[in-house]
Amino acid sequence: MTAPLIDNLQYANFSPAIFEQMRAGGVDAVHVTIAYHESFREMVLNLEQWNRWFERYPDLIFRGLTGEDVVRAQATERTAIFFGFQTPNPIGDDIGLVEICHQLGVRFMQLSYNNQSLLATGCYEDEDPGLTRMGKQVVAEMNRVGMVIDMSHSAERSTREAIDLSARPIAITHANPHWWHAALRNKSDAVLRALTDRGGMLGFSLYPHHLAGGSACTLDDFCQMVAQAADRYGARHLGLGSDLCQDQPDSVVEWMRVGRWSKVIDYGEGSAAQAGFPPMPEWFRDNRDFGTVRAGLLDAALSVADVDGIMGGNWHRFYAESFGPA
Amino acid sequence: MTAPLIDNLQYANFSPAIFEQMRAGGVDAVHVTIAYHESFREMVLNLEQWNRWFERYPDLIFRGLTGEDVVRAQATERTAIFFGFQTPNPIGDDIGLVEICHQLGVRFMQLSYNNQSLLATGCYEDEDPGLTRMGKQVVAEMNRVGMVIDMSHSAERSTREAIDLSARPIAITHANPHWWHAALRNKSDAVLRALTDRGGMLGFSLYPHHLAGGSACTLDDFCQMVAQAADRYGARHLGLGSDLCQDQPDSVVEWMRVGRWSKVIDYGEGSAAQAGFPPMPEWFRDNRDFGTVRAGLLDAALSVADVDGIMGGNWHRFYAESFGPA
Repeated sequence: MTAPLIDNLQYANFSPAIFEQMRAGGVDAVHVTIAYHESFREMVLNLEQWNRWFERYPDLIFRGLTGEDVVRAQATERTAIFFGFQTPNPIGDDIGLVEICHQLGVRFMQLSYNNQSLLATGCYEDEDPGLTRMGKQVVAEMNRVGMVIDMSHSAERSTREAIDLSARPIAITHANPHWWHAALRNKSDAVLRALTDRGGMLGFSLYPHHLAGGSACTLDDFCQMVAQAADRYGARHLGLGSDLCQDQPDSVVEWMRVGRWSKVIDYGEGSAAQAGFPPMPEWFRDNRDFGTVRAGLLDAALSVADVDGIMGGNWHRFYAESFGPA
Repeated sequence: MTAPLIDNLQYANFSPAIFEQMRAGGVDAVHVTIAYHESFREMVLNLEQWNRWFERYPDLIFRGLTGEDVVRAQATERTAIFFGFQTPNPIGDDIGLVEICHQLGVRFMQLSYNNQSLLATGCYEDEDPGLTRMGKQVVAEMNRVGMVIDMSHSAERSTREAIDLSARPIAITHANPHWWHAALRNKSDAVLRALTDRGGMLGFSLYPHHLAGGSACTLDDFCQMVAQAADRYGARHLGLGSDLCQDQPDSVVEWMRVGRWSKVIDYGEGSAAQAGFPPMPEWFRDNRDFGTVRAGLLDAALSVADVDGIMGGNWHRFYAESFGPA
């Protein structure tokens, strides 16, 4: 069996056409966002939509629960879909919902999105008081049941505390190093060192606001950054989390940013002049372009073994170690 | 491995003390009611309570999902707990919740309790128009995912239609033959023949309102009835569904009967003079008394093989055939 191809973050407007593209691109597993600001019940409605897709397109996709499901996806030429939340809103203030959501297949949860949550602080807040009382309890509960803590959108102190407090390695599923592109959402060297020193994973984002040069970022520039990150942090802690938001109307990026928490618009990483989804770089449009990324990484003088790991082998190992009970 | 011991319906006020009694009685599996009139979210709170018990008492109980879990319970000397609903209220008018609930471990659902539901008619209604439009769709969906249709509290026509429409055998988890004790809740010979002709299962109730003579019913009388039912329907379609409501305050029987659907009291099978839970027969007080029932069945001249089946082997076979996808 060759190394698997895994994209550890997508929030596309999923459809049979995209599932076909996943197959055309040889993508073995995708971590998909199933909730931002949804309540528990609204998140369950999203799960129901996925159940209907699994029922209708069993030859293309199935619900992924374990690391072994990545191997099953390879063997059956399908894509295993793993679920995650980008805010902890679906669990509200009920810690018992962590295990319920895990039983429903949820494998990643961000402790915050851009704002303060009940658990941790988002990277757009002015102050970051670190993990809350509930946040500390939820870290332990996620560790217990096998749900991965994701701090992609969280602020610096909260992220450091989550890395330190968690008994199991955590993830930053979709972000890039701040030293490459100084976006608020990208991560400091100190955070990335602490993350990877503890066995955690960084998924490189291909979302233009996270790229040096934005939509015009070149493949070579991106891949040189990955090679530098491999030197700094070790290639085995790196993977992809493309943040692909394919086929989404701009109303969705507004939902992601504003949800129901504000009556006025917040542009997040965008601006009034660039309020919608930015165009993806021309070398990564959809699930069929991972071969291009792979070729770019090889051109950046990374070893085949390192590239195999970054393209999916490392996430596969992390899945196998992370999704079961402690 | 000896034949398993399975009680296919309890709604006790569960506690570590009762879990210890299950072990003392050698009970390998119990189908427990986790919802009557609860909304989806309220039902999930009940699941959370069970998750906490599973976490705290892993040496006594675990969540049962498959027929194989009964064997695992025997091998590890624990009790597998299988979940069921006594009304379809937790799914409301959302058919997608059938699969969600199955993913959460729910393995039985009554299409109605005593009243008309969105799916079928309860045995206390004056009119029984049969399965509703949604009811027919839900039967097919339950068949697809592997959730057992339970018609214990449903009215005659609805029950017949569920038996006929279901592509897989259904269950009456807790009731007795009407020819033995003419309670509204007990089942006609025609229903029981149709049920068992299609491979369905009847669980004999030990709830006094379902027993000839009520709380004073003798073990011998009960066991003679079972032997007659075995002659009529075949022993392999018979099991136990004790309806044990141990340690429950009388406020709970009022909740079971009235929920939130009425502002005036409805006594259900009881009466103003006997409004609370009736006392159990002296030969079946709790999970430690199944040996007494077994001895009574052997005294009623049932064969050892038939008694093994009725005490749990038949439910085990039914579980193995019913809980997976169609």
